Amino acid sequence: MAQLWLNGRLVETGAAHVAPSDRGFLLADGVFETIRASAGEPLWLAGHLARLHAGAGLLGIPVPLSDDAIAAGLRDLVAANHLPDSAVRLTLTRGPSARRGLWPPDEPATPTLLATVAPRAAPGPARLIFCGTTRRNEFSPLSRVKYLAYGDAILARREALATGATDAVLLNTSGNAACCTVGNIFVRLEDGWATPPLRDGPLPGLARARLLKAAGAQERTLTAADIAGAREVVITNSLGITPVSHLEGRALAAPSILAEIDAIYLGP
Amino acid sequence: MAQLWLNGRLVETGAAHVAPSDRGFLLADGVFETIRASAGEPLWLAGHLARLHAGAGLLGIPVPLSDDAIAAGLRDLVAANHLPDSAVRLTLTRGPSARRGLWPPDEPATPTLLATVAPRAAPGPARLIFCGTTRRNEFSPLSRVKYLAYGDAILARREALATGATDAVLLNTSGNAACCTVGNIFVRLEDGWATPPLRDGPLPGLARARLLKAAGAQERTLTAADIAGAREVVITNSLGITPVSHLEGRALAAPSILAEIDAIYLGP
Repeated sequence: MAQLWLNGRLVETGAAHVAPSDRGFLLADGVFETIRASAGEPLWLAGHLARLHAGAGLLGIPVPLSDDAIAAGLRDLVAANHLPDSAVRLTLTRGPSARRGLWPPDEPATPTLLATVAPRAAPGPARLIFCGTTRRNEFSPLSRVKYLAYGDAILARREALATGATDAVLLNTSGNAACCTVGNIFVRLEDGWATPPLRDGPLPGLARARLLKAAGAQERTLTAADIAGAREVVITNSLGITPVSHLEGRALAAPSILAEIDAIYLGP
Repeated sequence: MAQLWLNGRLVETGAAHVAPSDRGFLLADGVFETIRASAGEPLWLAGHLARLHAGAGLLGIPVPLSDDAIAAGLRDLVAANHLPDSAVRLTLTRGPSARRGLWPPDEPATPTLLATVAPRAAPGPARLIFCGTTRRNEFSPLSRVKYLAYGDAILARREALATGATDAVLLNTSGNAACCTVGNIFVRLEDGWATPPLRDGPLPGLARARLLKAAGAQERTLTAADIAGAREVVITNSLGITPVSHLEGRALAAPSILAEIDAIYLGP
């Protein structure tokens, strides 16, 4: 039977529940991490937990277990489900509240800490459009932590799928590129690889930070025209690098950067 | 025993559960309404359900019951809990998904439709600050439906409470006023009452629409300076009108508009 890890214990998935009063469910009052596991070991765990703590601190949500206890729980979860190479999702919310409304009352905090694991699908080539439906809010500090709400990304993905594409570039409110729906964007311009700086609204991705070093890429504000003129494009997240085969219908070269993948994801 | 209404049935609150795979919990993939009930009857229900349908349509979430069935369920909920004058919360999410990731797989949609009811507290006077932590994204169509994610509002409320205030004015990404954390803002300027237009990012509040008519108010872009110079300020939502007693520490006059409340909320 599939199992998940909830508040420090392995539980059969069908027997695990979230309270309808959980503020994660009612108000998106929480953060999460998506973590690649390889050979039973969660990768980049220190970085993931640091980002989880940053988001929890921003929202004022206590993390109810130590990093060591979380790490042990994730390893147990991966092992119990016989998924040594997989995608782990770790979710933290402020937990259930006995009272309605926006502000948590003066009651003991009982955060919800949930982890689930699923097979990791190798990403196929992406066909990108520019999202015209919505924009990413670079003015919100929530853009710089892994906040629960993916509504704008869902709208962008819906727009992409409706046009025969598979993903979309989200612009920020200034009209410059921020990211894709579930990953950072890197483009190869005439003078090398580049990705938007954090002030432009992308998530500070862990793969992004590694690829910045590995590819000698630059953080630079990228206009839609910069993106549209790119020779090669990839999307990165903690699960892998996705090559972009088409951008607004134009075929792109296979990214030369893909040879770096193993070193970036599984290297020291 | 307290009861809630889940997917068309009354259930004891302690026995009601949400699946950990519910996309409302994992991705804020849903919308909600907060509805005032008076003498056992949900007020403005046609307006609330129209806005729920608008949000569900934007995200592509089917509404699993007819408006009549929802209305009957909410009346049953209010009656079963002996709370004829109360605050009802109606939440719709895309429901559980058997697969991980952003995009819902090709599986039958089983949305989650939940309603809860709680006593309605009469709002006391608010002490407002301008939120400096975050901004509201007027470029997202999710600003114009009642989207689940209240993270920016939570950050604004935290900032307010940390300074001894009770609520905050959220500016949009252009630096103009949008709304407060859980309601629309109306200000009395030299030439009458005004509130930000929908293009500036406020929720299209049902009380807002009624007060626009009742007070002969104007929709007008309001700068922070406009707000700071206002003679009177109120915050509106479907539960009531909140007078603002202080703005950035400055005492304001008691709002002359409060005499309109009964007509706005309980009138024909």
